[in-house]
Amino acid sequence: MNLLLAQQQRKNHMRKILALAEGRFSPLKSKTANGALAYLPNEVVAIVDSTKAGMTARDVLGYGGAVPVVASIEEGMAYGPDSLLIGIAPPGGRLPDEWRQWILSALRNGMNILSGLHTILSDDAEFSLVAEECGCTITDWRKIPFEYEVVAKGHWRTRTAKTILTVGSDCNIGKMTTMLEVYKEFRVRGLSSDFVGTGQTGIMISGKGIAVDAAISDYIAGSIEKAIDESAAEGHAYIFVEGQGALTHQGYSGVTYGLMHGTMPDAMILCHQPTRTHDDYGMAIPDLHRLIRLHEEVISIFRSTKVVGIGINSIGLTDDESARAADAIEDATGLPAVDAFRFGGAKLADALVSYLT
Amino acid sequence: MNLLLAQQQRKNHMRKILALAEGRFSPLKSKTANGALAYLPNEVVAIVDSTKAGMTARDVLGYGGAVPVVASIEEGMAYGPDSLLIGIAPPGGRLPDEWRQWILSALRNGMNILSGLHTILSDDAEFSLVAEECGCTITDWRKIPFEYEVVAKGHWRTRTAKTILTVGSDCNIGKMTTMLEVYKEFRVRGLSSDFVGTGQTGIMISGKGIAVDAAISDYIAGSIEKAIDESAAEGHAYIFVEGQGALTHQGYSGVTYGLMHGTMPDAMILCHQPTRTHDDYGMAIPDLHRLIRLHEEVISIFRSTKVVGIGINSIGLTDDESARAADAIEDATGLPAVDAFRFGGAKLADALVSYLT
Repeated sequence: MNLLLAQQQRKNHMRKILALAEGRFSPLKSKTANGALAYLPNEVVAIVDSTKAGMTARDVLGYGGAVPVVASIEEGMAYGPDSLLIGIAPPGGRLPDEWRQWILSALRNGMNILSGLHTILSDDAEFSLVAEECGCTITDWRKIPFEYEVVAKGHWRTRTAKTILTVGSDCNIGKMTTMLEVYKEFRVRGLSSDFVGTGQTGIMISGKGIAVDAAISDYIAGSIEKAIDESAAEGHAYIFVEGQGALTHQGYSGVTYGLMHGTMPDAMILCHQPTRTHDDYGMAIPDLHRLIRLHEEVISIFRSTKVVGIGINSIGLTDDESARAADAIEDATGLPAVDAFRFGGAKLADALVSYLT
Repeated sequence: MNLLLAQQQRKNHMRKILALAEGRFSPLKSKTANGALAYLPNEVVAIVDSTKAGMTARDVLGYGGAVPVVASIEEGMAYGPDSLLIGIAPPGGRLPDEWRQWILSALRNGMNILSGLHTILSDDAEFSLVAEECGCTITDWRKIPFEYEVVAKGHWRTRTAKTILTVGSDCNIGKMTTMLEVYKEFRVRGLSSDFVGTGQTGIMISGKGIAVDAAISDYIAGSIEKAIDESAAEGHAYIFVEGQGALTHQGYSGVTYGLMHGTMPDAMILCHQPTRTHDDYGMAIPDLHRLIRLHEEVISIFRSTKVVGIGINSIGLTDDESARAADAIEDATGLPAVDAFRFGGAKLADALVSYLT
């Protein structure tokens, strides 16, 4: 796991982030904090979770090095943070009442707020006032700028850059991570590439993108099309778009479908966790063949595109088990499969280069 | 075309509506005004469109009776309106600047505002102030009440009411109208039925529903699930849900997909206009067999459901031509097909009753 190359190009200054993950710091429940630890390792100074205080990020996640877990924001101040990251996303993204005091405390301690919540913190009168008094900023990754509230125009038909999208057999399964690893690999190979985030963590890491799950639903496709247009205008040959949700997840499937049609990808990578049998509705994860067919079918109305590889999330497995799971999936689907977070993005990059060129 | 039975039960008082359709009053471009003329004929007093002043609704649409078209809001005042309906929806639903003066003028003339625009008029400081000064109300059908901003919970698995959803081969093709006609027929037959609107026109007519295209995209499925839950709690056996957009329309397909998964219908009716060959992106309307398969496939992950009939929009055709088009579609698909707006909802109601019972 290397520092994301893009980080050096990112327009944001290097931040000193205290990541709030109270009660939920863990491999699966603190997605934004974990993304920061994995891809912005030089920016995270501490994690707040009183239930794991005294541990390190590596103790909890298996990565993230010696970044300490502390019991409170006050305790985290000892590490000199300049930003409080709301590092966990409650279901639906709403702001729990008890967090209000934590955010005010952070502002009063001179920290900027970085938030991916559906509740737009900068629209809150008290937060805005206190931020102004304290000379701090509030960044809401889920606030959709007005100019992105547009209906899709169909620009994919004239676009020359190739777009690659991750899709998944469920939500929260590794779509961002897989895409970041493949994107890194493309950059290592000297291929002109860009990463467009579609959720708070991806946007935090890359410094660009649009939180499509917060877009008004008429504008899902249009907002990501505009973000891709902007990336294409910068001259990139390959545009990697972070996937969101899942076509087979009842709650968020509309986001996924709109994102697929807004991206109109030249190629897809399907992300899958071999050990996950059911989603959070208790529904069995569908068969991979069926998922591949479904994802190709819903784009095929517009254009022919393929799932060209499987990105595996092998959390909880040993390296050997992960490799065997990948082999089994390769045998079953005929597609290259790998845990790119663990073993790097080369195998999937090979498949993409082969398919797209 | 009969007055919708539900109208008598609707909680709204009988309104006297002046419908604004400036420059766009026509069979296809003034959807909300046309819906009011078709289903709330006793509530519309005049239409504003200076380009067609002096004509009647029937002259322009073929229905709507002697309701006059007038050149301006001021001229419309002679007909005693108490409400100004924003009867046309610009692409994306934004408020054109020139409409601001019309709305202010209507408020100052004592009219309530009924709006389905994406721009929430009641959030506008000037409109709110003038409305308050004038003792008028502003109704924004696209303002999603906070309690509908929820992620879908999967309630379809325990629901006993049957849900029926219209889907379409394109946007603006007759999904609301077809569903209203079938719903009316179910009521005529004494079947306990409800109509849940999902767009401004459907909500205006039925007095209930949620404008799903204005929901934050994470909540598309959850918002309609909640609206259906409320209808089910009233004890209805059949819940007719107005369709939105199209799975094959690049701009709005995410809305459609989320609405399908939020409704998780027991049966679907596919709406189609035989004379329409291309959508507004210039894309050929897909083959009906393929559309039927696609709509069934994307629900089949969760449950088995069928397209049980085809609702035809035969605008521009004679009655004979419409009937012949229906016959051709029946031969091709093996499904009952009819223009329910023209010939009534009986044939599609028969198919639904047969499939659902």
